[in-house]
Amino acid sequence: MSVPIKSTLDAEAQRITGDALRASVVDLIDLSLIAKQAHWNVVGPNFRPLHLALDELVTAARGFTDDVAERATSIGVSPDGRAQTVAKEAAGLGFPDGWQQDTDVITAIVDNLATVIGRFRERIDTTEKSDPVTQDLFIEIAARLEQLHWMWQAQLATA
Amino acid sequence: MSVPIKSTLDAEAQRITGDALRASVVDLIDLSLIAKQAHWNVVGPNFRPLHLALDELVTAARGFTDDVAERATSIGVSPDGRAQTVAKEAAGLGFPDGWQQDTDVITAIVDNLATVIGRFRERIDTTEKSDPVTQDLFIEIAARLEQLHWMWQAQLATA
Amino acid sequence: MSVPIKSTLDAEAQRITGDALRASVVDLIDLSLIAKQAHWNVVGPNFRPLHLALDELVTAARGFTDDVAERATSIGVSPDGRAQTVAKEAAGLGFPDGWQQDTDVITAIVDNLATVIGRFRERIDTTEKSDPVTQDLFIEIAARLEQLHWMWQAQLATA
Amino acid sequence: MSVPIKSTLDAEAQRITGDALRASVVDLIDLSLIAKQAHWNVVGPNFRPLHLALDELVTAARGFTDDVAERATSIGVSPDGRAQTVAKEAAGLGFPDGWQQDTDVITAIVDNLATVIGRFRERIDTTEKSDPVTQDLFIEIAARLEQLHWMWQAQLATA
Amino acid sequence: MSVPIKSTLDAEAQRITGDALRASVVDLIDLSLIAKQAHWNVVGPNFRPLHLALDELVTAARGFTDDVAERATSIGVSPDGRAQTVAKEAAGLGFPDGWQQDTDVITAIVDNLATVIGRFRERIDTTEKSDPVTQDLFIEIAARLEQLHWMWQAQLATA
Amino acid sequence: MSVPIKSTLDAEAQRITGDALRASVVDLIDLSLIAKQAHWNVVGPNFRPLHLALDELVTAARGFTDDVAERATSIGVSPDGRAQTVAKEAAGLGFPDGWQQDTDVITAIVDNLATVIGRFRERIDTTEKSDPVTQDLFIEIAARLEQLHWMWQAQLATA
Amino acid sequence: MSVPIKSTLDAEAQRITGDALRASVVDLIDLSLIAKQAHWNVVGPNFRPLHLALDELVTAARGFTDDVAERATSIGVSPDGRAQTVAKEAAGLGFPDGWQQDTDVITAIVDNLATVIGRFRERIDTTEKSDPVTQDLFIEIAARLEQLHWMWQAQLATA
Amino acid sequence: MSVPIKSTLDAEAQRITGDALRASVVDLIDLSLIAKQAHWNVVGPNFRPLHLALDELVTAARGFTDDVAERATSIGVSPDGRAQTVAKEAAGLGFPDGWQQDTDVITAIVDNLATVIGRFRERIDTTEKSDPVTQDLFIEIAARLEQLHWMWQAQLATA
Amino acid sequence: MSVPIKSTLDAEAQRITGDALRASVVDLIDLSLIAKQAHWNVVGPNFRPLHLALDELVTAARGFTDDVAERATSIGVSPDGRAQTVAKEAAGLGFPDGWQQDTDVITAIVDNLATVIGRFRERIDTTEKSDPVTQDLFIEIAARLEQLHWMWQAQLATA
Amino acid sequence: MSVPIKSTLDAEAQRITGDALRASVVDLIDLSLIAKQAHWNVVGPNFRPLHLALDELVTAARGFTDDVAERATSIGVSPDGRAQTVAKEAAGLGFPDGWQQDTDVITAIVDNLATVIGRFRERIDTTEKSDPVTQDLFIEIAARLEQLHWMWQAQLATA
Amino acid sequence: MSVPIKSTLDAEAQRITGDALRASVVDLIDLSLIAKQAHWNVVGPNFRPLHLALDELVTAARGFTDDVAERATSIGVSPDGRAQTVAKEAAGLGFPDGWQQDTDVITAIVDNLATVIGRFRERIDTTEKSDPVTQDLFIEIAARLEQLHWMWQAQLATA
Amino acid sequence: MSVPIKSTLDAEAQRITGDALRASVVDLIDLSLIAKQAHWNVVGPNFRPLHLALDELVTAARGFTDDVAERATSIGVSPDGRAQTVAKEAAGLGFPDGWQQDTDVITAIVDNLATVIGRFRERIDTTEKSDPVTQDLFIEIAARLEQLHWMWQAQLATA
Repeated sequence: MSVPIKSTLDAEAQRITGDALRASVVDLIDLSLIAKQAHWNVVGPNFRPLHLALDELVTAARGFTDDVAERATSIGVSPDGRAQTVAKEAAGLGFPDGWQQDTDVITAIVDNLATVIGRFRERIDTTEKSDPVTQDLFIEIAARLEQLHWMWQAQLATA
Repeated sequence: MSVPIKSTLDAEAQRITGDALRASVVDLIDLSLIAKQAHWNVVGPNFRPLHLALDELVTAARGFTDDVAERATSIGVSPDGRAQTVAKEAAGLGFPDGWQQDTDVITAIVDNLATVIGRFRERIDTTEKSDPVTQDLFIEIAARLEQLHWMWQAQLATA
Repeated sequence: MSVPIKSTLDAEAQRITGDALRASVVDLIDLSLIAKQAHWNVVGPNFRPLHLALDELVTAARGFTDDVAERATSIGVSPDGRAQTVAKEAAGLGFPDGWQQDTDVITAIVDNLATVIGRFRERIDTTEKSDPVTQDLFIEIAARLEQLHWMWQAQLATA
Repeated sequence: MSVPIKSTLDAEAQRITGDALRASVVDLIDLSLIAKQAHWNVVGPNFRPLHLALDELVTAARGFTDDVAERATSIGVSPDGRAQTVAKEAAGLGFPDGWQQDTDVITAIVDNLATVIGRFRERIDTTEKSDPVTQDLFIEIAARLEQLHWMWQAQLATA
Repeated sequence: MSVPIKSTLDAEAQRITGDALRASVVDLIDLSLIAKQAHWNVVGPNFRPLHLALDELVTAARGFTDDVAERATSIGVSPDGRAQTVAKEAAGLGFPDGWQQDTDVITAIVDNLATVIGRFRERIDTTEKSDPVTQDLFIEIAARLEQLHWMWQAQLATA
Repeated sequence: MSVPIKSTLDAEAQRITGDALRASVVDLIDLSLIAKQAHWNVVGPNFRPLHLALDELVTAARGFTDDVAERATSIGVSPDGRAQTVAKEAAGLGFPDGWQQDTDVITAIVDNLATVIGRFRERIDTTEKSDPVTQDLFIEIAARLEQLHWMWQAQLATA
Repeated sequence: MSVPIKSTLDAEAQRITGDALRASVVDLIDLSLIAKQAHWNVVGPNFRPLHLALDELVTAARGFTDDVAERATSIGVSPDGRAQTVAKEAAGLGFPDGWQQDTDVITAIVDNLATVIGRFRERIDTTEKSDPVTQDLFIEIAARLEQLHWMWQAQLATA
Repeated sequence: MSVPIKSTLDAEAQRITGDALRASVVDLIDLSLIAKQAHWNVVGPNFRPLHLALDELVTAARGFTDDVAERATSIGVSPDGRAQTVAKEAAGLGFPDGWQQDTDVITAIVDNLATVIGRFRERIDTTEKSDPVTQDLFIEIAARLEQLHWMWQAQLATA
Repeated sequence: MSVPIKSTLDAEAQRITGDALRASVVDLIDLSLIAKQAHWNVVGPNFRPLHLALDELVTAARGFTDDVAERATSIGVSPDGRAQTVAKEAAGLGFPDGWQQDTDVITAIVDNLATVIGRFRERIDTTEKSDPVTQDLFIEIAARLEQLHWMWQAQLATA
Repeated sequence: MSVPIKSTLDAEAQRITGDALRASVVDLIDLSLIAKQAHWNVVGPNFRPLHLALDELVTAARGFTDDVAERATSIGVSPDGRAQTVAKEAAGLGFPDGWQQDTDVITAIVDNLATVIGRFRERIDTTEKSDPVTQDLFIEIAARLEQLHWMWQAQLATA
Repeated sequence: MSVPIKSTLDAEAQRITGDALRASVVDLIDLSLIAKQAHWNVVGPNFRPLHLALDELVTAARGFTDDVAERATSIGVSPDGRAQTVAKEAAGLGFPDGWQQDTDVITAIVDNLATVIGRFRERIDTTEKSDPVTQDLFIEIAARLEQLHWMWQAQLATA
Repeated sequence: MSVPIKSTLDAEAQRITGDALRASVVDLIDLSLIAKQAHWNVVGPNFRPLHLALDELVTAARGFTDDVAERATSIGVSPDGRAQTVAKEAAGLGFPDGWQQDTDVITAIVDNLATVIGRFRERIDTTEKSDPVTQDLFIEIAARLEQLHWMWQAQLATA
């Protein structure tokens, strides 16, 4: 395969930034699939608000997936978001099989979000030098995921 | 794990219908990931119309995924749409790694659609007795996928 | 009274289909009145999500009422949805008087839905031969009511 | 049953206002069912404009039903809008069974409106002292029903 | 001419289904042209409601034309909706030349609808085995045309 | 009063065009007041379609009033649309006092429209030389008024 | 002329309320014509904000005209909003001919508003007994006109 | 048949203008049917942009059909847009049967557009004297068709 | 400071009404700030429905603040909604610092609403004579706040 | 360069019309750039209404630029709207560098509009014979520019 | 009180960032209350554009308040936006009591904006190390406030 | 000329940032004019997708022009976007005269985008110290232009 899209970054910056972006694609697809899985399998008294909140998370994760994948293409790096790649490389903590109690769903989502946020915090550092444009996107993603992280935590918390 | 959602189908009908629905969830998620992969990696003179047409396919596949997953829950069957399950069980033909020429993308999408449609044609037969409500959903999905199948073929065809 | 609207069905098919449709009008109006009654009288910690979910049920029941009543007129059968007729003939389980605890509301709605769905499952069989057009409408109604049935059950369930 | 919603009215004002509101719920549901019944069963040269005008009446009656029922809850009174209650207690004049000629429909709607408006005129007086907030709602309802009363009369009138 | 679009149906099912679909294209275009013709040429006291109702019929007929034509392409059959083909092959009863009295328009539309509905009722039988996906589309079309048939009849009827 | 807005027309063209525009303002305001008067006072079996059609005429007349008044200002001529001016100078045929039978309303509107259209036909000739921009606006107004003229006539006509 | 619309008010209440409503129709049409006249003829540095604010006044006056005229019809009284009637009977202060300086326009609008508001204040008293429904409408109109009165005054005021 | 709609044109002007309008109805319906035919039967690499562009042409042709037909009625001339009339009298060049290669579709559309535009150019001349209102409509139609003519040519052109 | 906005009320009526309006501005701003504070600081299993319901309360309070402040200006009284004024003069019960358990939030909102509603009930009496226009606004505000009062209570209640 | 787009005009008409259109493209782009320049650089008490009014002018100028450029292509003439061409050939009076007082901005816009309108008035004459379709577009542009010319003058005027 | 929301920042970064965010909540609420106060109390010839511009400022300030408060919660810090806190801690310059001349309003808003912008400029520096996500939000706020600062200055400026 | 807008930046930072912003205004206007030029003059098989894609580029360039120009004003620097300035100072590569083949258009757009992106990459560095608010805007612009750069390249590329 040739290299059909030229980058406006130098080779080293492209490699560092591209690796961060490709890993982000995988993490975000995994997060969207986990959230959909929970959206369908949650049971318990809080079913309805969680069912709705999980679709907001799906929407956020899908939108960011497109953003990072198209940022990769914009710097000449081919993104890989196929099921096999996601199954192998995603950093998330996964989600159990079958129906899930509402409180367990909250815990699972909080933990998955914490893991993914941690990865984006690292990528903000990694790309500071290599590409401020990509870093800006990672900052935007972290901001939204941390907001969701608070909202999901708030459902577990006691004042 | 207990069985928290009671079905209005008898056990046998539930089993047959549930298997068909769970397999459909997996196929449709896979199809949506393949279409997104192509959306990002297509290159060539027809980039723009294909880029847009692939997102229409993503939208269709995602909408039907939700429909079949929530039909499964409606008959008391837990759907499984996690990345690992999709990677293992999807019936599609997959999609190659990296940038892809526009004509190759068309062929790959036509072939994947043909495979998935074949599976839905079988499920229409399987569920005729077990659950006409689910059959009706499969008929609707087949109708739309066959329409897309024509549109994608039309780009390859010569009169 | 003369017979002002001619049917495209023969007399026997018209009788069978018309009976099913007239009974459906009654059941669905009753369901919409029960759901509104619950919408106003529910109390308890889950007030807000139930208050909203009950209005979704009202919207569904009202829309289907119009569909089945206008399907009856389409085959030359006059529908009857007056309060006295509904009070006498509805198949639902009713709803108690006065303020109701949120958990009791969920149980009452699940039970009413199960009863009404059972009736529509029978009508799907009854009309298969007499009028596939009406059967198709009953399938669509069953699909939506079973989806709501799952969502209401899910609030009671434990995984 | 306990009294779960505290009122900002004193007991006597609450009783007077609550009775007026509970009766209004019943009258308005009955009116909406009568209008729907006519919407389906009207025949004659003016079918189309009447079919549409009847749905405007349904929309008005349904909206006001919700307003008065939620005004009842706002002052701590449980509303009762179940089919059996409506069948027993509604003040309207009812509507005949089966297909109805367009001119007969107009007369029936004009008469039902006149009856219901008369009841609201009384309630405006009754609640002037007991609760000006509820009175204001009754004034708004009377204004709209009298407007519809004119429009339905205008179809019968000769200049 | 080669056969550029492959079908997911076998040759016999494709032939039976394709014939039904091609005939439907012709009938529906004819119906839409008749309704437009009436929309322009109707005169009489009921001009306005008929003028509007005829455009609803045009909209329905045009939408279904596209549905059946694209269903034909989806199974690899080329549809033919050219003026000459419609003029030769349409099953409708036609419409007279020049200005038309409103009552005559109603009769003409009722009769044309009855003829076309009869043809779709036959096609529902014909395609039950050959292609349930196409049958489902014919059922949807029959449902809407029968609803319009009632509404147009209701303008002629006496209770 | 000075002449605050300069015209791009010469004095003679401005005078001819300005006179035509000022007279149009008066005629169109009068037409809109007549249509509103009829909108409120019409009675009879066709009340509803006429009530709606009259508001379409009001909307058209009001829109064109603004167009011609602002065209006058655009060529430096002050328009005069005050009640006294309209009462004195309008060319329309007026409208009787009090409730009006629906058939009489149709006749009155047809006659008023014919009178006003006649005046605009003359103004199209008058302004051909003096200002093609104003002529274009008069042509657009005549087109719409003649369309309404047909629709109102059609309600009186017999084929 | 017969009396085609029956009132739910007694004769005396109808007479008092009807007179107030008929006079309101005239005042509000006059106000809307004055505001349009000013909208076209205002000149000066504040042209643009005044040009826009005058159209808000037109919109308010036109909406209220329809409300009071249809309230008149609702109690069986025929409204009269023809140009000649407005020219003769309107209570407003009028508006001078030709182009007007922006500051003069503000003064003229403030004065006209004050006059019309004064009349509505009287009508609120007059109708308190005769018809609380009409009184409620007059209160709503006064509220909006007094808000506009402040906004127009504010442009003249110095703190 | 009597002549139910009176014209504001004299008999000769009505005849000339009416003939031009009736011929336009036929040409535009034919153009819309040809464009739909191409919309369904086009194949080749440019399928998608052509499929969409053809529906824009359908939309334009249908809108103008209504405009010219209602202009005919506005001058008292009955339009004729029935399939048989279109098949006999349309001026277009037609379109071949069956699937069509994308490049052939472009040529066919360009040629049909050129023929129809030529006819409208003639009608602009013909109606200049007989009816400037109709001429203005023909100018608007020519402007849009010539814009589409450029866009379709541009796909064949080489710079 | 001079008195730039003239009132249509006499001095005494202006003073009484103005005092009621100025106090309302302060109470409603305070209520909106309390609801926002709760919106951010609520934690617990019912976080999500409360978080949303609190923003509905904010929207209501902000809208009414503008209404009462502009009603004050409409009668020539300057409103004061600055932070210092609100902190000193608001009648509400306040809200504690820091994170708050969901059940505590409900109690705090119910109590604050009850206090504010009590004040508006008094103002309805106070302004009955001084200004029915302002009274009408207070009635509207009380109606909405009492509806919210019921909804917030319903979350604490047991049937 | 070849001549890829064929014209429906003859060579002479195409030359005359094409020259007028190409010059219009240049004038209108210049006008839109001047209006944007003023939008950013205006200062003074009338900043806000001018800032907004200038963007309306930009919107009008941009829309007409597209109309005239695509009218040129429709008759086979290539438009030229590049910065260098605009800088060289625009007929406008330009706009000074740096911040501008609001009154100076009004004068500059009025003068630029007058110049451009003068050019369009000439083009209306020039194209009357060569192409009535293009003339119609120039008339529409003149109508809108003269309306804006009035509005901008009105801000300078004294009555 | 416990610490219910865990932060993804370390304790020191959380403290620095949290202090900046809590102070921002207070400043922005104060700014929104000042702008509303001015919105109601401004008088003078520029009343209308200022009245509208002040509501844009309110909208901006309210939106940013929510953003910074929810950013605080996202890092585990409880925001405090109660009236008493705002009255004590806001950095703004305040706003005088009573009606205000339009020119004085402009000066007051410009000065308040300058003060608040200065504080956000400092916070951009402070949070550069402690939390780039929060810094990005402060940059966005500064950008919008500086744009408003220009627009408000522009109304005072002379070129 | 005085300096009417005060900056919140010191003189040196204002100079550096202002120069970058003024150059950006010029580059982006030039880019929007080039894209419009191509939008009109492109010919060839890919006309339609390019015609649409070029308008997306115009929209992006125009939006960013306003952003950078108003960022300049926000820091007290007057932007200059007049045609003469753009013609002299734009950094883009220009675009040839007359009709252009579709493949040549793609190359020209890719090259122009690459040049402009290079300039924004430099400005991101330049403004890092002088003004992080402006730098953030440049990052956002670079992100979008690089995305478009990929999409345009993708049409030329081979995998």
